[in-house]
Amino acid sequence: MRLVVLGSAAGGGVPQWNCACENCRAARAGRIAARTQDSLAVTVDGERWVLLNASPDLRVQLAATPALHPRAARHTPIAAIVLTNGDIDHTVGLFSLRESQPLAVYSTRAVWRGLADGNVLTRTLERFPGQLVFRPLEIGHPTSIADPAGAPTGVEITAVAAPGKLPVHLLRSAPSREDNIALLLRDRAQARLCAYAPGVARVDDELIDALAGASCVFFDGTFYYEDELQRRGLGAARAADMAHLPIGGPGGSLTRLARLPARRRIYTHVNNSNPILDPSSEERRAVDAAGWQVAEDGLEVLP
Amino acid sequence: MRLVVLGSAAGGGVPQWNCACENCRAARAGRIAARTQDSLAVTVDGERWVLLNASPDLRVQLAATPALHPRAARHTPIAAIVLTNGDIDHTVGLFSLRESQPLAVYSTRAVWRGLADGNVLTRTLERFPGQLVFRPLEIGHPTSIADPAGAPTGVEITAVAAPGKLPVHLLRSAPSREDNIALLLRDRAQARLCAYAPGVARVDDELIDALAGASCVFFDGTFYYEDELQRRGLGAARAADMAHLPIGGPGGSLTRLARLPARRRIYTHVNNSNPILDPSSEERRAVDAAGWQVAEDGLEVLP
Repeated sequence: MRLVVLGSAAGGGVPQWNCACENCRAARAGRIAARTQDSLAVTVDGERWVLLNASPDLRVQLAATPALHPRAARHTPIAAIVLTNGDIDHTVGLFSLRESQPLAVYSTRAVWRGLADGNVLTRTLERFPGQLVFRPLEIGHPTSIADPAGAPTGVEITAVAAPGKLPVHLLRSAPSREDNIALLLRDRAQARLCAYAPGVARVDDELIDALAGASCVFFDGTFYYEDELQRRGLGAARAADMAHLPIGGPGGSLTRLARLPARRRIYTHVNNSNPILDPSSEERRAVDAAGWQVAEDGLEVLP
Repeated sequence: MRLVVLGSAAGGGVPQWNCACENCRAARAGRIAARTQDSLAVTVDGERWVLLNASPDLRVQLAATPALHPRAARHTPIAAIVLTNGDIDHTVGLFSLRESQPLAVYSTRAVWRGLADGNVLTRTLERFPGQLVFRPLEIGHPTSIADPAGAPTGVEITAVAAPGKLPVHLLRSAPSREDNIALLLRDRAQARLCAYAPGVARVDDELIDALAGASCVFFDGTFYYEDELQRRGLGAARAADMAHLPIGGPGGSLTRLARLPARRRIYTHVNNSNPILDPSSEERRAVDAAGWQVAEDGLEVLP
């Protein structure tokens, strides 16, 4: 199994279009790495790739990643797309995968309903019957990920319910445990397990148990502090209001996940407000010292 | 009046994600300029900018354009967004303008209905009452473009009906002459007129008359040949099927617009299949010889 980080930022990216905080200014000036929005690509055979989430930056992410370039006049190495929730920053990239290419999309039924019901834009991916094939993920059940024609990619995924929240545009809907998931990725040949949990409001026993078997964990690095937006003068919302467990503090993920056996632990989905984006910050040193890495766009990982 | 080309490619951009044609390969290898999807930014006072179309690449286009960077923790120099039609490549960028920033959007009523009716995603731009202000453009009537609070930008726009077609995702709707427009931009102080017509199926008298008063014309450069996709082995659709007048040939725009008095004539919205993307091509030489320029991302124009 081989993973590539296509994007390592939370919604809005780094820099964010309407933000001139310290990190956004540093990213514009090239003093810290710019980051596109959260997405991973994974392959077992090196030929067929599975996208995990479809960020609004997908077009430029694909252009920057030679392994995902087409190998014929009309072709894509992308066999399937898996969505962890229905957030704008995880789904809008689907509309960049038009041009009559067959697509296989996997998500929970709740996420798919939120995206496809009453959303006229998805018709752009339905130019001919069968162009877009939706296949549901059932929480707790391993699914072999296949291309639109049904050929398996060798990647097996198990959805794990992760405490989260509905996307802002769906807040009038009834919440469900299918709204937000983490993914356990298995390469059947190597029996290696990798976890991807880019949005986590709380770590419960179910999630800890799921992460405990993974040799590599990508985890929600949105905020370092519960009151990070207030500290930086960027807004009143707290991390909990936005359904993201902060990294630091007594109940933060550094503490809660300290005993995970994973060899690689990587924070991703990092918000522009997060001090760990600056390699010289105290918070980044705390993360480094605890054996965590901060994802950057283009990072390759062999779990 | 000052204009910046944010993106100069047709839908899909150059390179296009699933295309390995000659131009897309050349763009990936850096032999020809890569291009993001069609959008312009225009200002009169150098402070407040109006976006013409919101491409899926908007986040990276803004990051690449210092004049459009925020000047405070939460700020944007973007006063308004004007849409010429409801195509995915002209509208999806709206979803990158979230983060609770007030927005003023101008388009015809038909385009706005197609985008907002039955499209749950637009709720992400309605986080508080009045966040998104829609103001209609009436064909043939000059409109002073103002920011969300109503302060004028100094840019005045007149919508001109341009023969085109409905976006693919709206093909079941009844067509209207409001579906696709060209824009006449006027800087009242200088009395200069600039035209922007990125999608034109046919040049009729109404459009010719409108373009005749402009000192600068941005025009649909999608295809050079009527059968360009077939010639390149990229598909069966003809330029007419996709509602784009080709540049070349007896009825093409080079011939049809030869007598326009405009000092600057610029082809934009250029498809990845178009040979004019290669500066050494015969077709590019024909365009150059006729006094037309081919837009590139970042090009600045003072009409």
